[in-house]
Amino acid sequence: MSIVVVGSVAYDAIKSPSGSCPRCLGGAATYFALAASYFTQVRVVAVVGEDFNQQDENVLRSRKVDTRGIEHAKGKSFFWSGEYGENLNEAKTLDTQLNVFQAFDPKVPQEYLDSEFLFLANIDPVLQGNVRRQMNGATRLVGGDTMNYWITEAQHRQNLLQTLKGVDVLLINDSEAKMLARETSVPRAAQKVLQMGPRALVIKHGEYGATVFFKEGEFGGGRHPFRAPALPLEEVRDPTGAGDSFAGGFMGYIASQGELDRDVFKRAMFYGGVMGSFAVERFGTERLQSLTRTEIDGRYQTFRELTHIG
Amino acid sequence: MSIVVVGSVAYDAIKSPSGSCPRCLGGAATYFALAASYFTQVRVVAVVGEDFNQQDENVLRSRKVDTRGIEHAKGKSFFWSGEYGENLNEAKTLDTQLNVFQAFDPKVPQEYLDSEFLFLANIDPVLQGNVRRQMNGATRLVGGDTMNYWITEAQHRQNLLQTLKGVDVLLINDSEAKMLARETSVPRAAQKVLQMGPRALVIKHGEYGATVFFKEGEFGGGRHPFRAPALPLEEVRDPTGAGDSFAGGFMGYIASQGELDRDVFKRAMFYGGVMGSFAVERFGTERLQSLTRTEIDGRYQTFRELTHIG
Repeated sequence: MSIVVVGSVAYDAIKSPSGSCPRCLGGAATYFALAASYFTQVRVVAVVGEDFNQQDENVLRSRKVDTRGIEHAKGKSFFWSGEYGENLNEAKTLDTQLNVFQAFDPKVPQEYLDSEFLFLANIDPVLQGNVRRQMNGATRLVGGDTMNYWITEAQHRQNLLQTLKGVDVLLINDSEAKMLARETSVPRAAQKVLQMGPRALVIKHGEYGATVFFKEGEFGGGRHPFRAPALPLEEVRDPTGAGDSFAGGFMGYIASQGELDRDVFKRAMFYGGVMGSFAVERFGTERLQSLTRTEIDGRYQTFRELTHIG
Repeated sequence: MSIVVVGSVAYDAIKSPSGSCPRCLGGAATYFALAASYFTQVRVVAVVGEDFNQQDENVLRSRKVDTRGIEHAKGKSFFWSGEYGENLNEAKTLDTQLNVFQAFDPKVPQEYLDSEFLFLANIDPVLQGNVRRQMNGATRLVGGDTMNYWITEAQHRQNLLQTLKGVDVLLINDSEAKMLARETSVPRAAQKVLQMGPRALVIKHGEYGATVFFKEGEFGGGRHPFRAPALPLEEVRDPTGAGDSFAGGFMGYIASQGELDRDVFKRAMFYGGVMGSFAVERFGTERLQSLTRTEIDGRYQTFRELTHIG
């Protein structure tokens, strides 16, 4: 089964204590698409500028990602520059140039409309809603992401709350969940967010893994949450895109399965962690470009050994 | 098999958003002893003052904890007062009165010397070392705890590094591990701490659980770490003693088993999380006073369901 992702395809300039990458292929949709491509057919909806290399488009194509939905507009591609300190938890943004992304009006190509899975990466919730509506009745599961900017500003928040009604699985981090629910406790925030529309909520805890919370009765089970670890990595080179890679592994694995049940979600949480752990080992999307399913399943076993009692 | 614990038995005054307790039975050795008492025979070495109630000593005795090693000294018991804000991660200390604890010179009673397990709760590393040396050759495993105060000040640090050479399993939290190793990454800090003496290191991540790291070849296995979750609790009433209760469940379970192997350590990590999760449900040690093994094993199953793929 195939999955459509809408979001940014961009260039990043990244510095971390392990080195730097002055012009890396980046963007949420890129990380997501590469990570998900190891599990299922991925179709991208995005916009790039005239500076976008054929070579970078080929990175996606060589992973058999459908790029027909990438619009080529006049101007420059979205550009982000950030720097990580010794504590790799958060990047200091040095520069953000929206460029062609500013006027992004995503259009889902006719050829994509039979996709059963959709992922709305972190963009304006109005655009997320537009894309959701463009998909036809084939859609079985909609995943989504968002960020503090859309959560806190009053008008954006209204738009976001509207969009969340059409999102089945929301993937956000601890601070976003607390901000969205206006709660100080993550488990309480989870229950509030599940009242806003999503049937499942994945809260990412960075180096500590992620927890999925379910609405009672959804996906064939009760309210019991499930927690997946992150790998205790001695060297994280570049945390950029870890969350999007998690989402790609998570949604990609789900899309590869016939059933939408708890066992599928649990394994998807592990595959999400696996893809996030690969992404941060090298700069940009480099590590995600040349994995094998054997390497991925090997690391999945490592995740099992890290958490399972024999 | 029995376990000796040396540490504080104290009174606490605690405030949190869920309420307050003006005079709770507390202290690291108390939390540890109660938590461990559900698994094995516990023997306490501590000092209390003239204000220490028979009723409070009976709390320990009713859990069959051996209190013959609790010295009754002239003066008042150790007293700590703290307050938690909405973010329950850290208490603001309002008052600390060491009282009789200031001159604490722990003596292990003759009757305790055949214990095969020892836990050195967070006290001056010089005293931890003294207690370690008082035990005879029966000791199979020594667990220990410490805190920033002993880690950072130069002379205390020297004493601590000396004591760590006689500690088999150190249990500390993320920030203590980073401080002790002078590292910014938890997994790198773990490897450095394992060079200081401990054969295993449990790093506690608060609401995200805990990870045990092993020195290669110790306890019948390689370097693979193991991660246990914490329970996503919607209401944490009082986080005081969560770490000591974790240590009590962890060491108590290990002491109850014949073998010191990886499977025992993994289950012990879960039992540690289980006892920590109970401790924070009510103020002080209240919840730890009246559990049943059925409740404990029920929650152990909940921890399994939270992490295990079917």
